[in-house]
Amino acid sequence: MVNYPNGKKYTSTKILTEAGGRGMELEKEINLTNTFYLSNDIAVIHKKPTPVTIVNVDYPKRSAAKITEAYFKLPSTTDYNGIYRGKYIDFEAKECQSKTSFPLKSIHEHQLRHLEQVMRHGAAAFLIIRFCYYEETYLVDAGKILSFTREEERKSIPYGWFKTNGILIPGSYVKPVDYLKIVDKLYFSE
Amino acid sequence: MVNYPNGKKYTSTKILTEAGGRGMELEKEINLTNTFYLSNDIAVIHKKPTPVTIVNVDYPKRSAAKITEAYFKLPSTTDYNGIYRGKYIDFEAKECQSKTSFPLKSIHEHQLRHLEQVMRHGAAAFLIIRFCYYEETYLVDAGKILSFTREEERKSIPYGWFKTNGILIPGSYVKPVDYLKIVDKLYFSE
Repeated sequence: MVNYPNGKKYTSTKILTEAGGRGMELEKEINLTNTFYLSNDIAVIHKKPTPVTIVNVDYPKRSAAKITEAYFKLPSTTDYNGIYRGKYIDFEAKECQSKTSFPLKSIHEHQLRHLEQVMRHGAAAFLIIRFCYYEETYLVDAGKILSFTREEERKSIPYGWFKTNGILIPGSYVKPVDYLKIVDKLYFSE
Repeated sequence: MVNYPNGKKYTSTKILTEAGGRGMELEKEINLTNTFYLSNDIAVIHKKPTPVTIVNVDYPKRSAAKITEAYFKLPSTTDYNGIYRGKYIDFEAKECQSKTSFPLKSIHEHQLRHLEQVMRHGAAAFLIIRFCYYEETYLVDAGKILSFTREEERKSIPYGWFKTNGILIPGSYVKPVDYLKIVDKLYFSE
């Protein structure tokens, strides 16, 4: 750790895609699963790049353009979307450290509005929530989350609610978060 | 312009979202059109963030995290996707400065493969190409572009080909590139 001459603390950290690298395990596992889906021609679903506002770029001769100043932007949509069995798929994935409830503040207002919009246009829209303590990953239809936020005053959704309203996602070595199995049941079973 | 002490040229440029800011006019107009579609609840189609590899981030106290080193990544998908009338929509948009032909190198191999994949799963997949000289913007079905790349040896698509195989996109003040009008004709007219 090196301080600025004025004594202000200076920190610098290597990160991958998300500020602080939190919630990366679930993301990695979903990416692996999506790669399996893609290479087996089951679905085309990608994670969107992290939105950043680029302020300054250097173009050194004979080497790649280097971004030297940029800032994280609030996402206006969810992280994942794509197509499966002709249907538009849209979801957000979150890890939850709490044993008792999922804090609603971990999903931005914009993202909830986005899920509502795509639902109205015919998407399969949902959340994937992992309770790290229980090593359980749930898929919950976006409609149920939206109803909860409208009907309840609470700022978090109790763990028990997910047991009733979500569906546990199975996993395997090549498909660590095999969420399309649940998508089949929820959105294609008429 | 300031040179490094070793005489190496140094350039630094303000950019918005794309390296060098080229092709921004079409992008801006499509974004405006998408905003119109969204606020009138016609479709939910967004531009994906520019993919960057983040190498270093500073976390100054009491201000936003600042990315101090990052690089542009080759996109593995197209720039735009979303949902319209229940259908998954996927496209790439490019400006073309040449009067005579559209150079195929402006679309990455990855992007063509991506368009092929989503087509196979039932997407409306296409390209929006603007010939700046003629102030004409064409929508071309991805299947036609893919056939061209398979059947022809050429490294560019002649302007005349677009007149036959593409459809001219109309525009207005609030919808500068009203491409969903063409999507209606091409993908919903049975």
